[in-house]
Amino acid sequence: MKVLWVFAHPEPRSLNGALRDDGLRALRAMGHDVRESDLYAMGWKPVVDGDDFRHDPDERLIVGAAQEAAQAAETLSPDIRAEQEKVEWADALVLQFPMWWFGMPAILKGWFDRVFVQGFAFGIKDPATGRSRRYGDNRLCGKRAMVITTYGAREASMGPRGIHGDVEDLLFPLQHGILWYAGISVVSPVLVDAANRMSDCEYELVAKDLRERLRGLSTDGTIPFRYQDRGDYDEDLVLRPELARGQTGLRVHLERSDQVC
Amino acid sequence: MKVLWVFAHPEPRSLNGALRDDGLRALRAMGHDVRESDLYAMGWKPVVDGDDFRHDPDERLIVGAAQEAAQAAETLSPDIRAEQEKVEWADALVLQFPMWWFGMPAILKGWFDRVFVQGFAFGIKDPATGRSRRYGDNRLCGKRAMVITTYGAREASMGPRGIHGDVEDLLFPLQHGILWYAGISVVSPVLVDAANRMSDCEYELVAKDLRERLRGLSTDGTIPFRYQDRGDYDEDLVLRPELARGQTGLRVHLERSDQVC
Repeated sequence: MKVLWVFAHPEPRSLNGALRDDGLRALRAMGHDVRESDLYAMGWKPVVDGDDFRHDPDERLIVGAAQEAAQAAETLSPDIRAEQEKVEWADALVLQFPMWWFGMPAILKGWFDRVFVQGFAFGIKDPATGRSRRYGDNRLCGKRAMVITTYGAREASMGPRGIHGDVEDLLFPLQHGILWYAGISVVSPVLVDAANRMSDCEYELVAKDLRERLRGLSTDGTIPFRYQDRGDYDEDLVLRPELARGQTGLRVHLERSDQVC
Repeated sequence: MKVLWVFAHPEPRSLNGALRDDGLRALRAMGHDVRESDLYAMGWKPVVDGDDFRHDPDERLIVGAAQEAAQAAETLSPDIRAEQEKVEWADALVLQFPMWWFGMPAILKGWFDRVFVQGFAFGIKDPATGRSRRYGDNRLCGKRAMVITTYGAREASMGPRGIHGDVEDLLFPLQHGILWYAGISVVSPVLVDAANRMSDCEYELVAKDLRERLRGLSTDGTIPFRYQDRGDYDEDLVLRPELARGQTGLRVHLERSDQVC
């Protein structure tokens, strides 16, 4: 399998750096082809602006339209096109980052903002309905992804009733809103809690778990997010009332949520 | 009242730019003192790195510790300190951005990543418990905030059972995880849907609504997120079982969630 590992930590001599090194080594030992986008090492520019698409500064910039036009004309800036080429190449993406303020570091958010543009990550229309394909069916369909994230909080406080919010809900915008939207199937995330006070012994357990999870990257079941176009949502893209009846919250977008209602 | 308006759109001639101009004008007409951080116009650097705190590149960078130490020593880079000074000055923050990939543009995420460091936005310990104060009680306690965000999706698809996830849940990491964590009370967000296809007439309605909401910025009720230290959470920061009994999901962290169980 071809794996693109996207790494968003400024310090290679960190816990994240060690896990990245262990993870890449394990994937290579399994015979996978691996490429890396080490965003800090690359000096990745995370800010969407007119330079991304040779925009005339005298003209009003309409971001979505400018991205789509530049994608079609192949005039996106070379750093964006290089990342798109890696994503196209990959069968699976690994997205590794320390959770800062309950989300991705800006450098990684800006990788998605700039690389996942209309015409690349989304934008196929269904000829029958005229509606954009999304959620399970889009340009990057067939690829897989795994999120690896570290945080200082302890597991319980990031759990279903933990004060910080359930980490699976905090990852919803990334795993469902970006990856699944673009058609990418997502395996369960690798979550590393209490990451700022880990002993060597604890590290070995975490690294072992990571290696096992990477072994299942191509075969493990993926998060059962609902498809947009298989009957679960109505014309307004609202979940049909008979599914997850009476429930709200992000979990209604999992197929298994029906089992509890 | 003193208001800091943080603006994260690259194009002043956009819908967002027009709303910003209308909003600032309205606040001034009400007699408020207003300052602005126009992140694109300022060329804001969103990436946390060693340059933020005069880090010796031969030493391992531990981000949280380096931020805390530089905050205490007053050696954070001048651009960060200038933003902190504005936040300190303000009674209320307005955070305005187009929603890109279901979250803040990287330039705004990186404003929080770099400015809201330990010792500035958080880090007071309770002398009795040794636990950090958070969620309703922290260094920025007493301030208010309002989020203004625009998106292309229609209202229903960002609603409680909409396919993209409820926008209030998508904003949880920002409104609860950043603002409330730091002690800032948050009024309801101003949400502008179908933003990429708005007529002049629709714009006038949106602008009028914005002006009304800004009129209530200092007086409107705030989102009733639970406090960390008023008895709702146990020692592991997990919601006590008798509250929102049997429920999970981000809404359990609202006090009103009790009313429905």
